[in-house]
Formats: sequence, C-alpha cells, structure tokens
Amino acid sequence: MNYPLTLSAILRRMKQAVSTRKVFTQTNQGKIHCYSYGDCYRRVCQLAHALNRLNLKPGDRVGTLAWNTFQHFELYFAVPCWGGVLHTLNLRLSSEQLIYMIDEAQDQVIFVDETLLPLLEKIAPKLSSVKSYVLMGGDRSQKTTLSPVFYYEDLLEAGFDCFDWPELHEEMAAGLCYTSGTTGHPKGVLYSHRSQYLHAMAVCLVDTLGLSARDTVMPVVPMFHANAWGLPYAAVLVGAQLAFPGPFLKAIDLASFLQEVSVTVAAGVPTLWLGLFQELKTGQYKTDHLQRLVVGGAAMPRSLIESFEKELGISIIHAWGMTELSPLGTTTAGLRFDSSDSQIYDQKAKQGLPAPGLEVRILGDLPRDLNEELPWDGKTPGKLQVRGPWVVSSYFQASHPALLTQDGWFDTGDISTIDPQGCIHLVDRSKDLIKSGGEWISSMALENALMAHPEVMEAVVVAMPDQKWGERPLAWVVLKNKSVSTLPVKTLKDKLQIELSKTFAKFWIPEKIDFVQEIPKTSIGKFDKKKIREQVLKEQTGLN
Amino acid sequence: MNYPLTLSAILRRMKQAVSTRKVFTQTNQGKIHCYSYGDCYRRVCQLAHALNRLNLKPGDRVGTLAWNTFQHFELYFAVPCWGGVLHTLNLRLSSEQLIYMIDEAQDQVIFVDETLLPLLEKIAPKLSSVKSYVLMGGDRSQKTTLSPVFYYEDLLEAGFDCFDWPELHEEMAAGLCYTSGTTGHPKGVLYSHRSQYLHAMAVCLVDTLGLSARDTVMPVVPMFHANAWGLPYAAVLVGAQLAFPGPFLKAIDLASFLQEVSVTVAAGVPTLWLGLFQELKTGQYKTDHLQRLVVGGAAMPRSLIESFEKELGISIIHAWGMTELSPLGTTTAGLRFDSSDSQIYDQKAKQGLPAPGLEVRILGDLPRDLNEELPWDGKTPGKLQVRGPWVVSSYFQASHPALLTQDGWFDTGDISTIDPQGCIHLVDRSKDLIKSGGEWISSMALENALMAHPEVMEAVVVAMPDQKWGERPLAWVVLKNKSVSTLPVKTLKDKLQIELSKTFAKFWIPEKIDFVQEIPKTSIGKFDKKKIREQVLKEQTGLN
Repeated sequence: MNYPLTLSAILRRMKQAVSTRKVFTQTNQGKIHCYSYGDCYRRVCQLAHALNRLNLKPGDRVGTLAWNTFQHFELYFAVPCWGGVLHTLNLRLSSEQLIYMIDEAQDQVIFVDETLLPLLEKIAPKLSSVKSYVLMGGDRSQKTTLSPVFYYEDLLEAGFDCFDWPELHEEMAAGLCYTSGTTGHPKGVLYSHRSQYLHAMAVCLVDTLGLSARDTVMPVVPMFHANAWGLPYAAVLVGAQLAFPGPFLKAIDLASFLQEVSVTVAAGVPTLWLGLFQELKTGQYKTDHLQRLVVGGAAMPRSLIESFEKELGISIIHAWGMTELSPLGTTTAGLRFDSSDSQIYDQKAKQGLPAPGLEVRILGDLPRDLNEELPWDGKTPGKLQVRGPWVVSSYFQASHPALLTQDGWFDTGDISTIDPQGCIHLVDRSKDLIKSGGEWISSMALENALMAHPEVMEAVVVAMPDQKWGERPLAWVVLKNKSVSTLPVKTLKDKLQIELSKTFAKFWIPEKIDFVQEIPKTSIGKFDKKKIREQVLKEQTGLN
Repeated sequence: MNYPLTLSAILRRMKQAVSTRKVFTQTNQGKIHCYSYGDCYRRVCQLAHALNRLNLKPGDRVGTLAWNTFQHFELYFAVPCWGGVLHTLNLRLSSEQLIYMIDEAQDQVIFVDETLLPLLEKIAPKLSSVKSYVLMGGDRSQKTTLSPVFYYEDLLEAGFDCFDWPELHEEMAAGLCYTSGTTGHPKGVLYSHRSQYLHAMAVCLVDTLGLSARDTVMPVVPMFHANAWGLPYAAVLVGAQLAFPGPFLKAIDLASFLQEVSVTVAAGVPTLWLGLFQELKTGQYKTDHLQRLVVGGAAMPRSLIESFEKELGISIIHAWGMTELSPLGTTTAGLRFDSSDSQIYDQKAKQGLPAPGLEVRILGDLPRDLNEELPWDGKTPGKLQVRGPWVVSSYFQASHPALLTQDGWFDTGDISTIDPQGCIHLVDRSKDLIKSGGEWISSMALENALMAHPEVMEAVVVAMPDQKWGERPLAWVVLKNKSVSTLPVKTLKDKLQIELSKTFAKFWIPEKIDFVQEIPKTSIGKFDKKKIREQVLKEQTGLN
C-alpha cells in the first residue's frame, strides 16, 4: 500500500470530491467573497505556475504575512504541494523577532496582505534572503517601497488553471511555524506532509473537533498560528466549508459574518469568545446553525463555558495544544458524564482527553520521584510528556536543543494531573512552578484565586529565591482601582492572604504581595514572567 | 516525527488511556462476560507469552476459526503486536476452501472456538503446516481428535500479565484475510500495521461510522470477515466500548443483548437488520441508546432504511466496502440534504460518499470511451477504481495477478455512477454486466425489478452469448409458488416482460425468461453466476 500521506492527496479532494463546497471570506470592502473549492483549486494551480516564475526551488521557504483569507488559503495548498515550505509569519511579533525568523528560515519570497504592508516595509531593508514580494488584496495602484514587488492577481492571471503536481514523499517538509517562546529566540517548528495529513484526520474525529461534510468552519484562530489548528487542511479532507473572517475580529463583525454564512463551528482563543458571548446575548442574531465553539490557546473560564452552553445552547469544546503538536493535544469533546454529574463544568474547564493517536504520560519532577511515571489519579501532578504521529521531533535549526527525551517523548513544559478517565488538568508551566521545601506550589492556581477577588484586575505569581525554602511565591497584583497609594495596602494584603488560606495549604500563601500599576507582558499578551523574575531578583539584590 | 503507525500504538491505549472502558461478550452459558480494556490488556500480555511458548517466529501466520468473542479480540491484538500475522478463517467456507487457505498461508497454529471443533476436526488431517491447535471456550474435559491441542485458559494462566512488546515497522504485515471470490481460488489480502491504523482512524470520522468514546459498538459483522470492518481496532483507538454477540445472531438474541449492554451503534449485513427490525417493532425492548446501524456487505433495501429511521428513530448508515479496502469504501453518513428533499431515502439507498482519504474515479469500459475518465454526473456508469492509504496493493501470493492498474489504482470490479456531490451508486458487478450491441445492460437492475414482482421469489440475470448483439440478457426466475409446471408459463413470461418494459429500454428486456426450481448459490449465499453461465452455455451448445 504505497500511498504517501501528503497534502497533495487532500488537494486532489478539493479538485473533485468536495469541489462544490464553498469558501467565504470577509473582505476589506465589507463584502463577502465566495467561491467553491473547485474554483479555488483552479487558482491554486495558477499560483503553482506563479511559484515557478518566481524562480523558487523545491524545498525553498515561502513566507506569508497575512490574515485569514482565501488568498492565504490558496498559499496553504499551492506552496507545499508545489514542493515548497509554507512559512507563516506571526504578524503580532516584534520587528526584531520577524527579522530573526525570516533570516533563519531564509525565506525567498514573502506574500503580504495590503493592510500589513507598513509592517513589512519597515523591516524589508534588513531582510537579506528575500528575493521578491507579492502583494495580496491590493492592485497596481497600491504604492509600496517593497522591491521587487508583484501583484497577486497579476501573477495568477498569467498561469494556466491546471498543473502537473510533483509526486512528493510524505516525509518532506510542508510547513514552518515559529513558537513565540517567552524565553530565548523563537524556534522554528517544521511540519512534514505526513504529520499535516495525520493531524487533519485527527482534527476530524468525533472526540476532537468533529469536522464533517455538513459543517461550515470559521477559523478565527490566525492562519499564522500553528496552521490555524489544522482547520484549512481538515476542512478540505472532509468537505466542510470554510469561513475566513479576514482582519475583522471584533465581536460585532464576527457575529454578523457567522450569521451571514451559517457557520456551524468556530475556533479561537477565549478572549474572543467573551466578546462574542456578549454580542450574541443581545438576541439580534439568528445563530441556530452555530453548534459549537472550539476554544484553545489559553484556558477558558468555567463560567463562560457554562454561560455559552446554558444560555445560548452552543457547545464549548475546550482544547489544548502547542505549536510543536501541530497543534492538537487534548479536547473535552470526548468526556463522558452521568446525567447526575454536578461536576460537568469543572471537568469541561480542564484540558480534556488526549486526541486519539496521541500518547501522554506524567513524570515526577521532584528529587523523590524524578522521572518516575506517576499515577493517573487526578491528584498527582507531574511533567506532561507526549508522543504521536503529529508531534515534531526536532526544531528547524540544529542549533536549538534536542526536542525529545532520550526515549522519544516531547516534554511539553507543563505540569499536569491526569485522572483515571485520562482527563488532563494543567497545573502550571514547569518553569513557573514554585518549589518550596521539597513541595510544589502552582503559580497559576494562586493567580486564578487572586484574580477571582472582586477588587483585583490582574495578578501574577512568580518564584522568589529563598535561603530556607529554596523558593517562595511572590505576587504582583494590579487593583481595579489603580490609585494604589490611596488604599490601605496592609488591610488589602491581609484580606487577600486570608482569602487564599481558605483554599490553599499554609505554605502556599505568599508572604509578599506587591501592588503594582502594571504587569509586564509579552508581544502576544501573556505575563512576561521572565522579565518579572529578573526585576524581582534585581530588587532583592538591591535590598541585600 | 518518527512515530510508526502500528497496532502496538493502539494496544498502548488499551493499557491506560481507555483502560476503564468495557468489553461485553454473549457467551455459550447464556451469560454476558464483561471485563475492562485494562483487564483485557493483561490477558493480551499473557497471550503474547503463550505465542512464545508455541514456538512461533515473527511473521508466522496464526489462524483463528472463531466467532465474535473477547478471546478472538485478544488474538486481534496479541498476534500482530507480538510480530505475527493474524489469519482469520471464514467459517462459512467449504472444507476444500479452508484447506486451500490454511495451506497457502502456511498457518502454524490455529485457535478454534469449542463450538467450531467439528468443522476443524474434519479437515485437520489434511493440514500439513499446522503444528498445534488451541481450543477456546472449552476446558480440559472437552474431547477432541486435534493434536497437539492446548487449552486457551491454561496457556494464558502460565504467562505474566505484562510483556515487553517488540518495536515494529509500520509496513510489517499484521493481518491476513481471504476474499470469498466467486471466481477461482480465494485470494489472500494482507494488511500492514500502517493500513490497519489508518483504517481505524478513518472508521472513526464523523462522516463514516463516527465512533466516539461515548459509544458502545456491537460488531455483528463477523471478525473473520475483513476485520469486522476494522471495529475492534477503531473502538480501542477512540475508547468506544465493544459488545460481541458470540455465535448468537438470531434477532431475538441480538435484541436482548443490545438492550442489556446499551449498544449505541451496531454493524452488520442487511439480512440481519430485517429480522432485528421485526423484533424491535414488537416494542418489548428499551433501545433509546441505539442511535445508528451500519449496514454493509450487500445493498440495504430503501424501504427498510426508511422503516428504521421513521418507525424506530434509528439512523441507518449505508456502507460499501471490499476485503481489499480493509474494507471501508463509502458510507451515506456524510450526505447532505435540504429539509425539503423528497429523495432522501433514494439517496440513502445508494452507496454514499467515499471515506475521507479514499480517492475514487470511474473509467469507460466500452470501446468508445475505453479507460477514459468519466464525468461525475450521476448518470454515466463506469468502472469504479479507488486508491488510498488502506487499499491493498497486492495479494498474499505473487501467483495471483497484479491488483493495481499501471497507474496505481485498484479496480473494484464494480460498475458505478458518481453524482456531483460525490455519491456513488453501484450499477452492477463489472463481470455481470451485459454488453449488448455496444450498450450496457445492468443485470442487477433487472434482477431487482423482477424480484419486486409479487409472484417472484428470486431472479438472476446473466449474459448469454449472441451472434448478432454480442450478448443478450437471460433471466432465471424462481416463483413463490414453485410448482411451475401447473402455471401458464407463457402468460407469466409475457407479464414480466411487459412489467420490465415500463422501466427499461426495449433492448434491455430479456427475450428468454426461464422458470427454475432453484438458483445455484455460493458458500456465502450469493447467486453463483459463474455456475449459471456455465450451465447456460452447456444448454446452448447442447441445443445447437
């Protein structure tokens, strides 16, 4: 059975088996662009001819700086099936990070949305590998300092709408995506055709995202972020329709768009869905077709899951993944409940069951149980490690440290418990965990508890070196009323400590709670604990 | 991402990820045997130790002559994961065919159900390759002429309940199943670990059989028939429970069993479901849990599909496959209907959409369009060819003709149309099609029309050589009142011809309709058209 698992096989489905199904895109002109997969296939062929004319060689990296659009979708197929490597650039990263990634990947061409031109023009002079640029969505009237520049539609027009696709090996590279690492430089994760194919199948299973030929999927998760969770490939595999929101990510825009094209399933980060919930609650939208939301990228608050399901009748699939996992790790879709179960929403707020095909284990991290496999009792936390057909085995450049353990597992860097049903519950990031007197303290659990307090807006907890205990937790808190100085700080601190002691063991309670104006964040909006720890150390040293 | 796709990976899920899920078996003692996947895993380990003690070598074929039971299920995992090849023997074949298959496969050991002992004892003296036999379900008190013979439970008891499984390559052989060919000797179809793994994933997709962790699956389709449609592996992959009916296939037994263990999905051939429908219609069973029936192996009558769905609220998934396809080909699960659609049940009686991952095409078979790819217009019939990750590329022994076309497709031997949505509708077996004056006549369509006549019990139509037209259709009809001689044959024949001419073109109508007492059938109950054609030729020659 010499049938290679390649994206070309999925592309062939676009050509015929699912050719009547549609792709919708919200465009800059306030209109919805719509065409069939059959139409799309012909343009993908034209694009492949264009790649030939751009003097690319098989294996070359082709960069994209783009929103979720039909053009980006065309590149998702044309580049890897032509034999190139699609390098999706995260438009939210800093100029320095973008330059670093483009240079390390040696991108030969960059396809850019007209709305993102300023971003690219700013860094273009520093990009030595890039031989040419292609402008999408704009036309010849669009002025740019990029050079040489081609116009996407001109390129396509010049090519035939059929193409003699090469036969590819399934282990060939298809895509490249950098992790937005909070430590060190971003690291490139290289996906093979095989891993993308298998990941697409996995995404369609009933107990993951359950994609089917009767779905219309709206990936709100960006296509520059871990392949938009594999949805573009998965949708074509099963013949689900696609709805791309373009750059229009405000709740009101998403709500109108998903109503207009009858979206059945949407996927994105929790912050988006909070806004969407409020918008849909106005009752101005007809959304009977919207069956489920897939939530990933960060933990979805329990209350929001419950509100969506009970008030709007929309199921929430809570998912967890990582760029290194293509990114599918776990979902709550396969959880089983008794009808009498009062813990449904506690369970649904956890990370869920490993996708079928993915293996998981937890290992001890403390000296007493170092690297020993820990029980699935829902209580014992350990280092979460995974392996499976869509887990990457090395980073793009060999200069980065090895990705896998000696026995072939990927260490996620997360600390997790697993219950007897196999449900994963992340306790903390491994590097954020506080080790105090030979015991673990979860910074995440403390943060969540602090942020549940009515007077607290944001809170972060990090480890502070301690001579006696090794480490002790330190909390930084931003109050809702930011004029900290006018408040009785001591009282507030005591109040918080008393509140925490209701839930946590005594040794978990931070002796030191500082009230700050602002918490440093990374480019993608996460707490920058690296920077916070450095600042804490500096203050400590200064004090000593 | 060096992660081999092997059944061992699925076995590891049984050990832990889905270990709490259960397996039920209807036993000879009228009781239901029940254990968890975790229990099962420990016995699979014990069985692997037993394979060592039976002096088997990696790659050796291990035969099974058994019903759907937990012991057979244990063999499904132990044999391939230990490194052997599981050869499931079709207990409905003739002694000659069984001897042929066991000899060609060079089975070293045969595991046999106690109830099937007589069948095996009869042929054992002629089996030169078999070194030993293992008796399942019985105990030491069971007398047998087989020698040397071991008792399954004794073998297991002697082994540890953990095992150091070998690392296997995904291309290694895992299973062997013979096609019950109506022409020539049976042919062995060899499945690799990779094809079984990918097939298991495919079976769980929403638009195929949609297996999930919340299902309890009852494979009524025999485990000796194309891996019970891959259900044993698929169930463990996603954590669905399994319910094995043993040899108890009567409607009343199946109905009680599926009620007892709350089956959500059952799979088998149409004849079974007709009986089950009548049984469930009595209203004596509580079957709210039974959501869907998967029907394959033969076409399900449209009326029965409608009855199940409308009267019992049970969805029918109509599926088509072949041993050479592992066996999943198409299902109706992914069909899309408008609510206003009046043709729903016509569509559901067709074969459905290709499983995601499987590619299909139809090629011309007549001189004017020979091997030309034909349009998907729902009207033009052609030779149905497929390719995909679970389509086998060669038969077990090289002496059989090549399986694939020069460009890598498997010719199914079926003639089919495909509509624009991709829905497959089988018109006839290629070799049964009648070619008259350069046009096609479907023997199957004529047979169905004849059998719809109230006075007809069975009807078969075959090609009869014809000097002028090349071939002409000839019909054999068995009347419900079999005493043919007392009936005005001429009148009946005219009546049938007039009836047919209401539906079919004039050149389709058989000039010759013979009334017979009986139609020859194969060992598995299909019309033996080979034998019929031989008889027709003999008569024709005799007459000339």
